[in-house]
Amino acid sequence: MDRLTIGAIDIGGTKLAATVARADGPVLRMSAPTPKSGSIRALPERAIALLDETCKRSGVDPAEIRTVGVSSCGPFSTDDGLIGLVSPNICGAGSDVADLPNDWDVIPLESVLRERFDNLVIENDGVAALAAERSFGALQGENNCAYVTWSTGIGFGLCVDGRILRGKNGNAGHAGHMLLSETSDALCGCGNRGDLEALVSGRNLGNRYGQSAAAIFDTARKGDPHALAVTTEAARWFGRALYNLTATLDLAAFAVGGSVWLNHGEWLLPIVQEELLSHLPALTKGVRVCTAGLGTHVGDLAALSLVLSSEWATAWRSSAPWHKTALAAG
Amino acid sequence: MDRLTIGAIDIGGTKLAATVARADGPVLRMSAPTPKSGSIRALPERAIALLDETCKRSGVDPAEIRTVGVSSCGPFSTDDGLIGLVSPNICGAGSDVADLPNDWDVIPLESVLRERFDNLVIENDGVAALAAERSFGALQGENNCAYVTWSTGIGFGLCVDGRILRGKNGNAGHAGHMLLSETSDALCGCGNRGDLEALVSGRNLGNRYGQSAAAIFDTARKGDPHALAVTTEAARWFGRALYNLTATLDLAAFAVGGSVWLNHGEWLLPIVQEELLSHLPALTKGVRVCTAGLGTHVGDLAALSLVLSSEWATAWRSSAPWHKTALAAG
Repeated sequence: MDRLTIGAIDIGGTKLAATVARADGPVLRMSAPTPKSGSIRALPERAIALLDETCKRSGVDPAEIRTVGVSSCGPFSTDDGLIGLVSPNICGAGSDVADLPNDWDVIPLESVLRERFDNLVIENDGVAALAAERSFGALQGENNCAYVTWSTGIGFGLCVDGRILRGKNGNAGHAGHMLLSETSDALCGCGNRGDLEALVSGRNLGNRYGQSAAAIFDTARKGDPHALAVTTEAARWFGRALYNLTATLDLAAFAVGGSVWLNHGEWLLPIVQEELLSHLPALTKGVRVCTAGLGTHVGDLAALSLVLSSEWATAWRSSAPWHKTALAAG
Repeated sequence: MDRLTIGAIDIGGTKLAATVARADGPVLRMSAPTPKSGSIRALPERAIALLDETCKRSGVDPAEIRTVGVSSCGPFSTDDGLIGLVSPNICGAGSDVADLPNDWDVIPLESVLRERFDNLVIENDGVAALAAERSFGALQGENNCAYVTWSTGIGFGLCVDGRILRGKNGNAGHAGHMLLSETSDALCGCGNRGDLEALVSGRNLGNRYGQSAAAIFDTARKGDPHALAVTTEAARWFGRALYNLTATLDLAAFAVGGSVWLNHGEWLLPIVQEELLSHLPALTKGVRVCTAGLGTHVGDLAALSLVLSSEWATAWRSSAPWHKTALAAG
């Protein structure tokens, strides 16, 4: 058992990462830009090559890796039971969002990875991060809960009655595209106006106010009235979305991560809580909002959590080995 | 087996109903007003008495009934693992909604019923109706779906990955209280302004426009421009809520019931579909909206579905015995 090695692949809109882990913890994590040109198999093939390279640099025979967890940006499609990737930030065909150097419609993510790995679990990144927070972070022991990332975009992983929700194509948790405002002209990458992501994501706040979201939140924290109004409004919308999810799913706890929250959650929290708790007390009373326990490590552990044995998970909960994972660029 | 008899109790804001069923179908359904005064045990005790009376009129010994399904309006609370009822339409303590002749805070629904019945399943009415539609109605074979009632109020039952969602206190599906409009002054019984129920429910449309919802929808169907504008707007809000649930849960199908929809769904459907399908095609493409297959029988079958054996359910699917259930007032 202690000679077994597992792999993890993270697929983001701009970056791929691969991690190799042994029983005592993740060994090495390597990252590389997400391929956006070439054959429609380019992305999964590059992910496999990056994982192979991570193995070699870790002194592991790549053929030893049969079990791989994959955490990917969405949305997914399903064809013949196999997951494909239709992310508008990566696939050029029909994308209104970006001028992409490819005409990919559906990346055959699962079929290409299955040619190589026997034991493969693919989930959207919100679902995978939720699995990590339930295993190692702020949501341990919570059966009705959500992980939320407030970053460039907004993503959720949802858990009800102790089971993580997947939905018809594994896309449950796209609540960043929940419509909240009927008057706002804030535009989301998906084409919606006034959805949560349009109203509060780092990318969309940046687009609307002509400076980086980091600058807006930093300025607000220093007391600038305009920036403070903008960020307070964003926190209220965020709280309203958490309320909507509580009313819909009768959740008990939210763990929030992502760069916006990890840098500014402390002063945004009271605004978010006030908005959430001001509605329907029969459902919202006692609902907990906290910062994700894994902080910036949630990404490293998200994909691994999907394929971790319960023995390894138990050991990792006490040793927290992710704090000493080595990092390298691919 | 064929001598076994089961019971069902429906608890609504204005009406209780009790049904007795045998292997070949429901025998008799009796209804009576929902008690709103007396001891805090009055409601569950009246429900038991009504079920006893239904037994006697059906020639069944009440002691024979050990298995009972209960479908109740919500919300629920949980105390020591037992479900209590905190519905603002029934409990006087802290209710802003109605002037109620009681000071009940939490009705001890489950504990009183458990004194009498060994095998008891209690769910909120949206969850129970969903169970019925999945067993006998328009959602057979659907693993990612919702039942929606559009009536005096708005309620949902949600199913993801083949499992019906309950949440921390069994209140999943209160998506009628999802906030949709930040500008509307439409007021919901729960105190929210601009939630789905405030915007479209029969009760709230009636309150806002000074005539019954039935009259508004009838007049709209006859072409009155004002009524048509009001109902079209309501249908758009309804479609927007179905979109939000699709984005959140990656659902494939909605079955809609309730008096508003059963009378007007045919001409409201295109408006609802257009709104739902106009967002995020990666998740909404092919999502089905249809009328609940059980129509006005969904209430009769909701509570029964919670405790029906698979043998009985299989037999009932071909015989549809609910069409010949006798009805009586208690």
